[in-house]
Amino acid sequence: MKFFIFSFVVLNSITSFADEGMWLLNNFPTNTVQKKYNFLATPEWLDHVRLASARLAGGCSGSFVSANGLVMTNHHCAHSCIEQLSNANKDYVSEGFYAKTENDEVRCPEIEVNRLVNISNVTQQITAATKNLKGQAYNDAQKAEMAKIEKNCSGGDDNIRCDVVTLFHGGEYHLYKYHRYQDVRLVFAPEMAIAFFGGDPDNFNFPRYDLDVSFLRVYENNRPLVNKNFFKWSNDVAKDGDLTFVSGHPGNTSRLLTVAELEYLRDFGLIRNLLSLSEYRGFLKEYGNRGIEQRRTSETDLFGVENSLKKTKGKEEALLDKNFFGKKVAEETKLRQKINMNPKWKVAYGSAWDELAKAQLALKNIKISLEKIEQTSYGSDLFWKAKRLVRAAEELQKPNEKRYREFNDSRLPQLKQELFSEAPIYEEFEIAKMTFGLTKMREDLKADHPFVKKVLGLKSPATLAQELVKGTRLKDPKVRKELFEGGQKAIESSKDPMIQLALAIDPDGRAIRKKFEDDIEPIIKKQSERVAHAQFAVNGANTYPDATFTLRVSYGKIRGYAEGATQINPITKMQGAFDRHTGSDPFALPKSWLDAKTILDLNTPMNFVSDNDIIGGNSGSPVINKNAEIVGLIFDGNLQSLGGDYGFDDSVNRAVSVHSAALVEALKKIYKADRIVNDLLGAH
Amino acid sequence: MKFFIFSFVVLNSITSFADEGMWLLNNFPTNTVQKKYNFLATPEWLDHVRLASARLAGGCSGSFVSANGLVMTNHHCAHSCIEQLSNANKDYVSEGFYAKTENDEVRCPEIEVNRLVNISNVTQQITAATKNLKGQAYNDAQKAEMAKIEKNCSGGDDNIRCDVVTLFHGGEYHLYKYHRYQDVRLVFAPEMAIAFFGGDPDNFNFPRYDLDVSFLRVYENNRPLVNKNFFKWSNDVAKDGDLTFVSGHPGNTSRLLTVAELEYLRDFGLIRNLLSLSEYRGFLKEYGNRGIEQRRTSETDLFGVENSLKKTKGKEEALLDKNFFGKKVAEETKLRQKINMNPKWKVAYGSAWDELAKAQLALKNIKISLEKIEQTSYGSDLFWKAKRLVRAAEELQKPNEKRYREFNDSRLPQLKQELFSEAPIYEEFEIAKMTFGLTKMREDLKADHPFVKKVLGLKSPATLAQELVKGTRLKDPKVRKELFEGGQKAIESSKDPMIQLALAIDPDGRAIRKKFEDDIEPIIKKQSERVAHAQFAVNGANTYPDATFTLRVSYGKIRGYAEGATQINPITKMQGAFDRHTGSDPFALPKSWLDAKTILDLNTPMNFVSDNDIIGGNSGSPVINKNAEIVGLIFDGNLQSLGGDYGFDDSVNRAVSVHSAALVEALKKIYKADRIVNDLLGAH
Repeated sequence: MKFFIFSFVVLNSITSFADEGMWLLNNFPTNTVQKKYNFLATPEWLDHVRLASARLAGGCSGSFVSANGLVMTNHHCAHSCIEQLSNANKDYVSEGFYAKTENDEVRCPEIEVNRLVNISNVTQQITAATKNLKGQAYNDAQKAEMAKIEKNCSGGDDNIRCDVVTLFHGGEYHLYKYHRYQDVRLVFAPEMAIAFFGGDPDNFNFPRYDLDVSFLRVYENNRPLVNKNFFKWSNDVAKDGDLTFVSGHPGNTSRLLTVAELEYLRDFGLIRNLLSLSEYRGFLKEYGNRGIEQRRTSETDLFGVENSLKKTKGKEEALLDKNFFGKKVAEETKLRQKINMNPKWKVAYGSAWDELAKAQLALKNIKISLEKIEQTSYGSDLFWKAKRLVRAAEELQKPNEKRYREFNDSRLPQLKQELFSEAPIYEEFEIAKMTFGLTKMREDLKADHPFVKKVLGLKSPATLAQELVKGTRLKDPKVRKELFEGGQKAIESSKDPMIQLALAIDPDGRAIRKKFEDDIEPIIKKQSERVAHAQFAVNGANTYPDATFTLRVSYGKIRGYAEGATQINPITKMQGAFDRHTGSDPFALPKSWLDAKTILDLNTPMNFVSDNDIIGGNSGSPVINKNAEIVGLIFDGNLQSLGGDYGFDDSVNRAVSVHSAALVEALKKIYKADRIVNDLLGAH
Repeated sequence: MKFFIFSFVVLNSITSFADEGMWLLNNFPTNTVQKKYNFLATPEWLDHVRLASARLAGGCSGSFVSANGLVMTNHHCAHSCIEQLSNANKDYVSEGFYAKTENDEVRCPEIEVNRLVNISNVTQQITAATKNLKGQAYNDAQKAEMAKIEKNCSGGDDNIRCDVVTLFHGGEYHLYKYHRYQDVRLVFAPEMAIAFFGGDPDNFNFPRYDLDVSFLRVYENNRPLVNKNFFKWSNDVAKDGDLTFVSGHPGNTSRLLTVAELEYLRDFGLIRNLLSLSEYRGFLKEYGNRGIEQRRTSETDLFGVENSLKKTKGKEEALLDKNFFGKKVAEETKLRQKINMNPKWKVAYGSAWDELAKAQLALKNIKISLEKIEQTSYGSDLFWKAKRLVRAAEELQKPNEKRYREFNDSRLPQLKQELFSEAPIYEEFEIAKMTFGLTKMREDLKADHPFVKKVLGLKSPATLAQELVKGTRLKDPKVRKELFEGGQKAIESSKDPMIQLALAIDPDGRAIRKKFEDDIEPIIKKQSERVAHAQFAVNGANTYPDATFTLRVSYGKIRGYAEGATQINPITKMQGAFDRHTGSDPFALPKSWLDAKTILDLNTPMNFVSDNDIIGGNSGSPVINKNAEIVGLIFDGNLQSLGGDYGFDDSVNRAVSVHSAALVEALKKIYKADRIVNDLLGAH
């Protein structure tokens, strides 16, 4: 854990000087950008960007880059698919993958791609539905209204996905309508060794030399998607100072949270996550030493854990920075003073902060039980499926708007994709992960908790995990499908040990969740709405909401930064990858690169940094120029950008991208991936 | 991680109501105890307690309990010896150990027992030596004076150990003179399953049912020590409300630290430790899954890590408690106000807090480098030895008072015991631990740090660890002895890869250490002295210093406590162990207990809690009554007591002990350990 010094110059104050903001497509700061960069983002330009952007529903971004459905994203966004398509004899993660013909393109079992076709503001409908309500009634009414709006929007068409999105923590509600694509096939992935060159040590650092790319193709009716809306490839080579836009799906930020909410994270939530991620990392790395196959099957998880760990450390360090946190406190104090000075505002919003602080305490008291009784599957994918099957049987008997949100009609296609996925499940790994998860559950709730006794009985976590994983038939997708379709009767008569355990603990999970959803969640929602309206009242609404894994555009430029006394050049060259090659993992270039060295133009730009405001979820986002042409591919941020969860400092926060020139150079000369190059450049 | 609620009623304010304090033997609150408990601790009583108490130099406490050198301590204090005496065919950790005859008693390779024979106050000598000095000169002069005093005290006799101890963070300096015993043999240990019944889940909890005991015997001239000073066994069965004394060696507390120092711990030091312990725990647990032998050889480490982790969590939670920390801040503010109101005090002490705060920032900046370049051996016992051998060769050429403290003449016997130990070293485990340690080093310093490149070169941590461990001959104690005795010449001509690496990085370690010892340590020491004198000036000197792993006596009583609405009974019974038995580790009683169930008196008191003020290092301390007779054996504290590092709350902080009645019942009926029972009770 390297503690770095934050020097947040600008905090949530949108000035024309900082390239701050993850902007809504329907509230883009056109004037600001025009003034600063002399570029007018027309409605047509914004529509085109929206339609050429892609969301990977699992948690990443991407872009449509050809007329025949090609989608570009990061290697690490397709990593789990690449692993799922591999086996003990053929490891596409380490060897790379290239479909030489269309027939060789293979379907990813669990990838869903979304294209945002429309946004509408449904704030009035939502707030009308919850007017004068509070507590459970407020929460139930809001969820029911959301479910109704979503169902009306999709009209029951599984190819349409509609999500009501809460913006500004309740300040506004927008309806996002997507085209949903579930037939997504793998076209190309380089070797992990170059996709993630430098590995965990280099992750979130710069200079970098990674080719973190993969290409997928969206199919419709078993044919490559015929696609009008895609980003063209730039003919120019982007250079220092160039204006850049990033169009992608930042997952989550907390810039508008109150001080009490940030304290909850700093003193409890994040520390808890850090400890659990650290221990899990230690376990996973050593699990990989059981053997080559165990390493292969656990690598995706390890990557995810190390990535989260580094991110969470960065977030915690930002909150622990006294200057930074002091500014947050000062801002809130100032806002509250202004609210209290206006009698009308004081009545409308004045008490919201204290109410939220109380809710944080209540949340802290319930959090561990909520997590360990309801929100976890103890590390087991199989048990996750068992719990979902048991819940689905009961939930799907209810009308749409009475169900838990994740069982709303609009969510069912994704649930089914996950439940019926043909992705391999590794018994040994499942047992190991579940042993770990059950042990942590006992540790968190303590050995004498009735729930612990209910789950473990007289067994040790290891014994129970072994019995459940070996005994369950849920490894077979057909069995899962039968249980899903068989409904409550099939579930209740099932002899499957995982189904039986999931059924036994289902009431415990529902009970603790009810406590949260009736007593805590509505307070947080309602008071956050009030805080949002207070912010609007004082600061106006010309701003951007916290990230919500919905499409945002950020503007900025290719730009270096200072780290201590060192000025960091914003663009690296391919030569640098060879200079950094030691031959030892994670600094070992793959054979294909070593072999091709002499034919490569080593002066080709490889990676670059820009001051675009991004965060996790933006992985795979296209970086485009003012002509909406691809100049790069986001794959990381620098360490300093991790504090960006709570505030943006454009002097040091940087997005890290693969340069478009390196992509083409590698595809042409190293991988001879002519089909892809033609798809990309043939568009010209 | 279970967050519990602190309710610190009393904080550092010594009143006659709380049983607070880890008291110096030469500053015992005789009057307070007499007033409160109507018991007069005479000088003779205190001398007897001192001489019958034992310190295990590795980090535990113990007591002399017979006329023939028997020493009682915890199982977990002798755990590493028990493991070192075991092998793949005979596992004394899981099976237990009992020497039926004197000939069967086996020497522990690395245990040193100390008996405190004298304490003298050397404050004047130390302060005279450093008068008017600061920075490096201050630090060098202080260390030289300490080395001189210690050498004069021992007179070069290896059987005498003399330590100058810094009390009140520099308020006073005392010379502790010990008799040193290095021939210590294992006599008895129960099975791990009962010594640590409930395992990590029950650790630091109560009610408990553990027999965490082992018996060692001190030998002199190859014969059991003839011993006049020992604690007799109590004929009475201690019960709720009984007055109890604990005489032991609390390792470290931080009750007198300034707010800036506590913030350093809360926001940096402890979090760093927590993350590293968590990851190491994950690694170790999974390493144990490599096989039975790997589990056996890694168990001691895992126990230590889990124990430290729980303790550190408790400490961090205490500091994160807003009420608790707020009181610390308020206390310091009050103290500083009083100091500033007195012009003489203001000059003498007024700036100390700010100076200390600056030093904490400087320490934070250097800490990771200091730790990773100088203070760690990357998890490898062999490399620890290599580093010590390399250092010793150079240091021992210097006069005693110019050496690093750990190479002072007075420390050499312990160093030699550790260096030449015959304890087994497990190659596979060494490689795994060193791979982990080198990986963390690269992560902390970052891949491009010159030191990282110097150590790893082009190799991965795994490759380097493998080469070093396989290649070194240091596994053989004879080789280590030859290198030690061969001095600088032997070291410099050695072809051993570990010696060569240790030699190569020695200058880096010395350089960063010099920076710390010249620029930071003297400020912390000098300013802490000033803070201590300020505290004396305002509050008087009738108090106890922070724990320093030196002998302290705490008074208190057997006493339950409330946990939420539940009142916890202070004494458990043997029956409870059988009630808690599930048959699954860690809740599986050993066969010996199950077999003996019918002949045991299940009403025998098993464990108890008392409000004695203890902390880590007190493990193995005797609990005695007013007649200085054994009534129990400290082995743990409750969760609430973990915050005791920073302040004591006698309403909930509890020490946890094995009851003397359970010890005798088990020794007699389960283990038929008549020799021990005779040693213990024959004294009557």
